[in-house]
Amino acid sequence: MEKRIAILPGDGVGKEVSRGAVTILQAVAELFNHKFHFTYGEIGGAAIDEFGTPLPEHTLDLCKGSDAVLLGAVGGPKWDVMPGHIRPEKGLLKIRKELGLYANVRPVQYYSSISGISPLRKEVVEGADMVVVRELTGGLYFGKPSERSFKKGEASVVDTLYYQKNEMERVIRYAFELAAMRKGKVTSVDKANVLESSRMWRETAEEVAKDFPAVQLEHMLVDNAAMQLIKNPRQFDVLVTENMFGDILSDEASVLTGSLGMLPSASVSLTGPYLYEPIHGSAPDIAGMNAANPIAMILSAAMMLRLSFGLEEEAEAIENAVQQVLDAGSRTRDIAVFGTPFLTTEGMVEEIKAA
Amino acid sequence: MEKRIAILPGDGVGKEVSRGAVTILQAVAELFNHKFHFTYGEIGGAAIDEFGTPLPEHTLDLCKGSDAVLLGAVGGPKWDVMPGHIRPEKGLLKIRKELGLYANVRPVQYYSSISGISPLRKEVVEGADMVVVRELTGGLYFGKPSERSFKKGEASVVDTLYYQKNEMERVIRYAFELAAMRKGKVTSVDKANVLESSRMWRETAEEVAKDFPAVQLEHMLVDNAAMQLIKNPRQFDVLVTENMFGDILSDEASVLTGSLGMLPSASVSLTGPYLYEPIHGSAPDIAGMNAANPIAMILSAAMMLRLSFGLEEEAEAIENAVQQVLDAGSRTRDIAVFGTPFLTTEGMVEEIKAA
Ligand SMILES: CC(C)[C@H](C(=O)O)[C@@H](O)C(=O)O
Ligand SMILES: CC(C)[C@H](C(=O)O)[C@@H](O)C(=O)O
Repeated sequence: MEKRIAILPGDGVGKEVSRGAVTILQAVAELFNHKFHFTYGEIGGAAIDEFGTPLPEHTLDLCKGSDAVLLGAVGGPKWDVMPGHIRPEKGLLKIRKELGLYANVRPVQYYSSISGISPLRKEVVEGADMVVVRELTGGLYFGKPSERSFKKGEASVVDTLYYQKNEMERVIRYAFELAAMRKGKVTSVDKANVLESSRMWRETAEEVAKDFPAVQLEHMLVDNAAMQLIKNPRQFDVLVTENMFGDILSDEASVLTGSLGMLPSASVSLTGPYLYEPIHGSAPDIAGMNAANPIAMILSAAMMLRLSFGLEEEAEAIENAVQQVLDAGSRTRDIAVFGTPFLTTEGMVEEIKAA
Repeated sequence: MEKRIAILPGDGVGKEVSRGAVTILQAVAELFNHKFHFTYGEIGGAAIDEFGTPLPEHTLDLCKGSDAVLLGAVGGPKWDVMPGHIRPEKGLLKIRKELGLYANVRPVQYYSSISGISPLRKEVVEGADMVVVRELTGGLYFGKPSERSFKKGEASVVDTLYYQKNEMERVIRYAFELAAMRKGKVTSVDKANVLESSRMWRETAEEVAKDFPAVQLEHMLVDNAAMQLIKNPRQFDVLVTENMFGDILSDEASVLTGSLGMLPSASVSLTGPYLYEPIHGSAPDIAGMNAANPIAMILSAAMMLRLSFGLEEEAEAIENAVQQVLDAGSRTRDIAVFGTPFLTTEGMVEEIKAA
């Protein structure tokens, strides 16, 4: 198989972990006889520094002409002082919109080998295995107006939570398709007791559910979901929600197992290419120190092989290698029990490659 | 001291726990020689059943004519089928707006005596002691438009996140005043990398901070806050945020210590009366079974004595009684370790009264 992969390392540890993922993908290509063409593009702060904009046209063109996109991370204190429209995050929001990445998919998995670092009690979190599906191109993130005004001596501000019903429908449908291949349960999260948009969301979920008689649909209010994720994370299979709720809940979910540095994500569109990125950010405090955990990025590459290229065996080879290395006790700093030895980013990549 | 207290039991366990709070307040009145006049009013489902509306005018008048309001809980499956405008929650939203309850104040405290029931590891949560201050009368909850439309064959919906700057200012100021009397730190939570309203919120926090040189101000993005609450709850002193973020984060925070059934809250206004209520809901599954934990409601009454009436000694008497009863091992079902004996609602009230 021959595939073009756009690599957007971005900022901070994004650069290091991207290198790690490419190393592993090259090993996979050799082993399974594929040809992966890697082309590099700038995004975020790196793009601002070089081109004055967080998502240059040529980066976008590169992505559109590729079969899949691997993104490291964007942002850092250096660019926090920039005016709103040239902040690194704008590059991320724009690429989501331009590539039509309507669903962000985040598997959250409990690794018994690193159970010691979860903030939750083992009895509570053991066996948790869920996927958070977040709507990614609508809601408060993109609604207009989003502006201030000044009337009668009074300053005020408005942001707009706007959705088309078909934007709700496609991401909810995605969640049901996923649940049908997993444990068969969708938890749709909203705030239907307050928001009109949530009432439409709930109705849409009910409508989509009719097409999936084998999948159980459950509605949960967002405040309750924030509690249930901690009290009983095992109850979830696929959780689906709108953009802003999803931003909050997917980050909350990602710390339950203590494996934040190990969680991959995929953002999918109707036509492709899909975009894959680790859940963690650019971690400016450890950037360039060869200390970041490359596993989230490497598992994102595995997701790419599976979802974009249909290379199930290859994806599993990577996932098994990661599992094996963890079982053997290898750790980067973030997942090492305090005071025990740990590997560098490159050291971890080498071990996974060897496995 | 002579005070008029409006009691709004509401629905479900609200009725039972309100009774408990009144019993304790009567004991306090006798012991300390005060006169509390209790007048009862309907709200929520109970009010819908009797008067066809979740907040009848006479209930509102009763509240306005009282020195403080004690609310049980509202809602239940029976009324979930009602059209939007006569749902029990509307009563809650309306009373907040009508009484001008701009800040909801929720202390979250770790009780070592019930440490066994927290979903978090003891090392993570031990010693956590924070107050979540949530803006309560603005944002997505009340912004207009909040409606659907249908154009060119396409259904869409909009909700509006609207704030006046002075609405932000007063609740942030409240948080600083609180922090000045506590550990001296305010964590202001927003989504300033995406929302214009959050950027105004952040600026307002900076402005208010100038009046409190001894209080440290820290900004945190809402997704990160959802993570930090679990990873390291001890870092927080006073957390302040807008209405919707506050709904989610205050519920998340309330389960960290495992003491959800024990957490009180106060909602304050510029002029009074303030409203006090437990954090938990109406718990329809155990309503009428004499099984609910009355402690959250009783501690809400203690908050009332302190904040509305300035009765510090009396408030502490209640809080100490609760502590003593817990230290002695008394538990209701929700805070009992599985398989160990527990008290009824009334049994717990009696023990606290005796203490
Ligand atoms: C950087 C920010 C705009 C972004 C978001 O809120 O979507 C991030 O938090 C994420 O979740 O990918
Ligand atoms: C019942 C509901 C409208 C309410 C809210 O969202 O404010 C509740 O969740 C709360 O937090 O008091």
